[in-house]
Amino acid sequence: MASSTLMLFFFLSSFFTFSPIPCLGRYHPLDPLTPSEFTQVRTIVKKSYPNSIHNLTFQYIALDEPDKSLVKSWLSKPNPKRKTLTRRALVITRLDKHSHEIVVDLSTRSVVSDKVYGGHGYPLLTLDEQAVASELPLSYKPFLDSVEKRGLNLSEVVCSTFSVGWFGEEHKKRVIKILCYYIEGTPNLYMRPLEGISLVVDLDELKISEYYDRDRIPVPKAQGTEYRLSKQKPPFGPKLNGFAIVQPEGPGFKIDGHTISWANWVFHLGFDVRAGPIISSASIYDLEKSTYRQVLYRAFISELFVPYMDPTEEWYYKTFFDAGEFGFGQSAVPLEPLADCPENAVFMDAYYASSDGTPVKLSNAFCIFEQHAGSVLWRHTETEIPGEVITEVRPEVNLIVRMVSTVGNYDYILDWEFKPSGSIKFGGTYDTNFFYMVGLSGLLEVKGAPYTNTGQIKGDAYGTLLADYTIGVYHDHFLTYYLDLDVDGEANSFVKNNLVTKRVTDHSSPRKSYWTVVSETAKTESEAKTQLGLKPSELVFINPNKKTKPGNNIGYRLIPGSISNPLLSHDDYPQIRGGQFIDQSHGDDTLATWSLRNRAIENKDIVMWYTMGFHHVPCQEDFPVMPTLSGGFELRPTNFFESNPVLKAKPPKREHLPNCTK
Amino acid sequence: MASSTLMLFFFLSSFFTFSPIPCLGRYHPLDPLTPSEFTQVRTIVKKSYPNSIHNLTFQYIALDEPDKSLVKSWLSKPNPKRKTLTRRALVITRLDKHSHEIVVDLSTRSVVSDKVYGGHGYPLLTLDEQAVASELPLSYKPFLDSVEKRGLNLSEVVCSTFSVGWFGEEHKKRVIKILCYYIEGTPNLYMRPLEGISLVVDLDELKISEYYDRDRIPVPKAQGTEYRLSKQKPPFGPKLNGFAIVQPEGPGFKIDGHTISWANWVFHLGFDVRAGPIISSASIYDLEKSTYRQVLYRAFISELFVPYMDPTEEWYYKTFFDAGEFGFGQSAVPLEPLADCPENAVFMDAYYASSDGTPVKLSNAFCIFEQHAGSVLWRHTETEIPGEVITEVRPEVNLIVRMVSTVGNYDYILDWEFKPSGSIKFGGTYDTNFFYMVGLSGLLEVKGAPYTNTGQIKGDAYGTLLADYTIGVYHDHFLTYYLDLDVDGEANSFVKNNLVTKRVTDHSSPRKSYWTVVSETAKTESEAKTQLGLKPSELVFINPNKKTKPGNNIGYRLIPGSISNPLLSHDDYPQIRGGQFIDQSHGDDTLATWSLRNRAIENKDIVMWYTMGFHHVPCQEDFPVMPTLSGGFELRPTNFFESNPVLKAKPPKREHLPNCTK
Repeated sequence: MASSTLMLFFFLSSFFTFSPIPCLGRYHPLDPLTPSEFTQVRTIVKKSYPNSIHNLTFQYIALDEPDKSLVKSWLSKPNPKRKTLTRRALVITRLDKHSHEIVVDLSTRSVVSDKVYGGHGYPLLTLDEQAVASELPLSYKPFLDSVEKRGLNLSEVVCSTFSVGWFGEEHKKRVIKILCYYIEGTPNLYMRPLEGISLVVDLDELKISEYYDRDRIPVPKAQGTEYRLSKQKPPFGPKLNGFAIVQPEGPGFKIDGHTISWANWVFHLGFDVRAGPIISSASIYDLEKSTYRQVLYRAFISELFVPYMDPTEEWYYKTFFDAGEFGFGQSAVPLEPLADCPENAVFMDAYYASSDGTPVKLSNAFCIFEQHAGSVLWRHTETEIPGEVITEVRPEVNLIVRMVSTVGNYDYILDWEFKPSGSIKFGGTYDTNFFYMVGLSGLLEVKGAPYTNTGQIKGDAYGTLLADYTIGVYHDHFLTYYLDLDVDGEANSFVKNNLVTKRVTDHSSPRKSYWTVVSETAKTESEAKTQLGLKPSELVFINPNKKTKPGNNIGYRLIPGSISNPLLSHDDYPQIRGGQFIDQSHGDDTLATWSLRNRAIENKDIVMWYTMGFHHVPCQEDFPVMPTLSGGFELRPTNFFESNPVLKAKPPKREHLPNCTK
Repeated sequence: MASSTLMLFFFLSSFFTFSPIPCLGRYHPLDPLTPSEFTQVRTIVKKSYPNSIHNLTFQYIALDEPDKSLVKSWLSKPNPKRKTLTRRALVITRLDKHSHEIVVDLSTRSVVSDKVYGGHGYPLLTLDEQAVASELPLSYKPFLDSVEKRGLNLSEVVCSTFSVGWFGEEHKKRVIKILCYYIEGTPNLYMRPLEGISLVVDLDELKISEYYDRDRIPVPKAQGTEYRLSKQKPPFGPKLNGFAIVQPEGPGFKIDGHTISWANWVFHLGFDVRAGPIISSASIYDLEKSTYRQVLYRAFISELFVPYMDPTEEWYYKTFFDAGEFGFGQSAVPLEPLADCPENAVFMDAYYASSDGTPVKLSNAFCIFEQHAGSVLWRHTETEIPGEVITEVRPEVNLIVRMVSTVGNYDYILDWEFKPSGSIKFGGTYDTNFFYMVGLSGLLEVKGAPYTNTGQIKGDAYGTLLADYTIGVYHDHFLTYYLDLDVDGEANSFVKNNLVTKRVTDHSSPRKSYWTVVSETAKTESEAKTQLGLKPSELVFINPNKKTKPGNNIGYRLIPGSISNPLLSHDDYPQIRGGQFIDQSHGDDTLATWSLRNRAIENKDIVMWYTMGFHHVPCQEDFPVMPTLSGGFELRPTNFFESNPVLKAKPPKREHLPNCTK
């Protein structure tokens, strides 16, 4: 019996991938588009442009989400009464050098609207056009000459694409930069740039429009750049012993389509080619009220801004927006069982559309698992009562939803963590394995001479010398989250509970000071703008229409992660950019511009954009592969429950496996 | 075979407690005193005061650590050549109302020195004197009258002790305050204060010196305060499924006495009745240099300051120093296997001396285990090389050393975490289960009328109304760490790498700005004082006498945890206090006073004191027992290694257990 459960469990956990595609006609309103829907969209759109099949490309296809009110009423119905809402797709195409925003109705199989985008900026870059662009140099005579001139073997040359940013130009074509690398003796291409060579490709023509071979610097050696285990030579180490996690009762969560329920949580896990994971309609079961209560309607990473801090010719433009330019979802990689995720993980596939509209399957895009980190949910030992000692301990179990997005050299490990205590944590672990290697190219060219020792560096190197001729360029990572909290309902207010020092001057107390809480409710968008770290304050989303029994505001609190404020000047171009068409955007579609309307936000259905940042000064430990650096923030209930929601959680069974054999 | 390993492992992990007592004469110089040594110390000291046995109490007995130079040379010797260094004890006694500082030599069995402490403040409170003091009210007529007056049952009354602080008095006797509680129908004593009653006990006389029955407020109900699983009524939840962690190869660490080696780390785990865990002589193995390199000579929590923010008569004095007044080590509680620590934990006992000098055993004071949280050490997926996809992932394994210290209502879960990547993290998880209940007493008395709803509160309640008549008082937690880093040797310097914005004004770049690093080496103690969060800066301990091959300073970096600066005014008494005799101290023995010498600290054997803080605004989820709130900081190698120290770590074996039966 126990043995069979276990076998079943193991089967489930490591080799079974969950297929989220719903049975015909039974969609959750927020389910991402299915392969067959992508195919439908493609057919419908192509039909409306019969003569332009060849220069029509799909830059973005995603679910056009139904209005929140419709979704809410659907969610409020009992399961049998739930009818699938009209399925619509939002499509962004490039057609005759214009960006089209097209809405497709999948029930009527028709185009609902088709607008040419008139604003600045360009849509998401597709993997296909980047792949084609990367190949162009390899058949481009001037480039071949440059390679030959350097005495290199063309078959060992690999090129990659870099968005060009915006620096005040009034208009610029839809272009991308190409830099090339040498992979002889290493898979670590970023380590071996072909110094001084750069190309510009016109993405609508898919032709090389500019070519530069400015300088001639030897290609750095492959030595020390290898990271594959199979190619490493002894000594190995440090030795880490093996282990296995076993769940005799099986996993504690259920997956129905894209809806995941676990412990006291239920939520929807969506996927978008740009944003990656989307957490929706997260509700938590209130044991005391015997009902589920709303917490979070929708949350995702709206953008990730990575500006590099080298203003020189070959580097100044490197100010990447990884979500809007390269696509977090599109860059997701298949997760490795037993490595990216533990034994007890269940995997889920995802789908997106290629540039010709056909569906692409992402195997093991997500893993979902219960985390047993050996931490404590709550505990107390009571020794003050004579003649008795009380010890009550509850071990902690969390649910992790993980996706890894590899944007070129970067590996972003994106975790959403749900806690039985009501907290939702986002743990962003990023692992910028190789970018420092890219840093090498621009910097060496600028410096004119390669460095093997910091003593040789005159002036600012804009980074850290990590190895011979290898400078890791200073940079930032700013992750901006879209957080549509619905704290026990849609109408919420944003409150800053400021901690303010009070001095006792009237000798009423032996104390000279204390602090107390002075609350401030943001009435408008501008009042809600907050620079973190300036003053001690708790940031709370409250529901002003409901109170706890003692009369406190029902709320959820943002506990920020590492606070890093922007260091670029406010008028600098990369600092201004943003928006949906972010590639080369001019910043006329950003939070900064939209919030100028300064709308009233008290007791309204409001959304918080929270930015978490890291300033990154590379160090040698980051070479040639960087140990993960983690950051995160927490959404924590604050007078949301009447009392501790896990007071009556029974400790999970922890019995031993008395006998396990090979 | 595999099965027998497993059985052995299970035996080891959950039921075997490691005895750290060394074989005769084979002490590590930093090993804490053993039971027999405590007994020796007691005999030696008592012999020197033959006529005063009855009023001699031992407030503190600990190892008198040998000079660092001696310890270092001992450590540098090969094991067979290591002779035990002279063992000495530092003893603090109360004798005829004076505090004595006595040094005892255990080899010559003699008192080396005996000084009467002439400064302000008093030593650690012993558990014994607190226990006696707590019993005094129960046979004190006026108190019995007060209990009877309230119609309460004396057998259900429990009292507890509270340090009195210092508020500018020139001299005050060694006293402690007593507050009492009612435990009828609940073990949650802090929830049911006998409002308005407080006593003062003279600790040298162990007599009640003051008594107050100011007010008469009904004792709050027991309802809703129970936290024992056995007493809870359905419904239970949320349901958390069972699990087990299995290590077919057994644990990856070795324990020899108090020395623990794991992966690339080796360090010494000590214990002190005041500080609790002491991590010493932590070194990491450098695969490239094939040698162990020093990182940390000594680290522990030097103090924990918990000021409450209610200035009224019954509360103003509550400004506790949990290490120096109550003793983190003395307050350690036995860890529960399978609850406080997972299956794969090994436990270790600890010892301290009671107030009469006899040894007390703390069973399972520590647990040591490998943490498998399902996180990633490093990874990369490479898709840019045509025709090949590379994925390399290394799962993370960490080593956790845990102690739980319960200071009255508080449960502090103290974790030291070692990472193969070279980081040491301190994860302080605190779980202030019940203090809010204590908050009730003072506040209700002051307000004169009990609250059941926030609407009734006029003016400042100094806290949050958590339930009927129950206010959780605002407070802080400031943990100060003693961190004696020896980065690749003793002589280190403290460097602030400030991130500074540069504007591009000469049109040399399309960019308008970037940031770069401007380093600042602290020459003196005052230059090293740093308020965190004021400006972006990396805080690095470097070894100025050594450089990496590329010429970077070899260093370790402090990555701070949550930054909370003090909100009390700088001239307020609790803000001034500190030092070894901290109970009622006047602040003449603090970092602030010692650092006035402003010594030169460049290229010296320096120590960092780092303070991590939390401001705590209680919420209803904290009632009646609070879900853990965590904080921590990281010491991370920064150009300490030439390259990633875990590049060549093989992934741990993750094979499944094919067959497990009950």
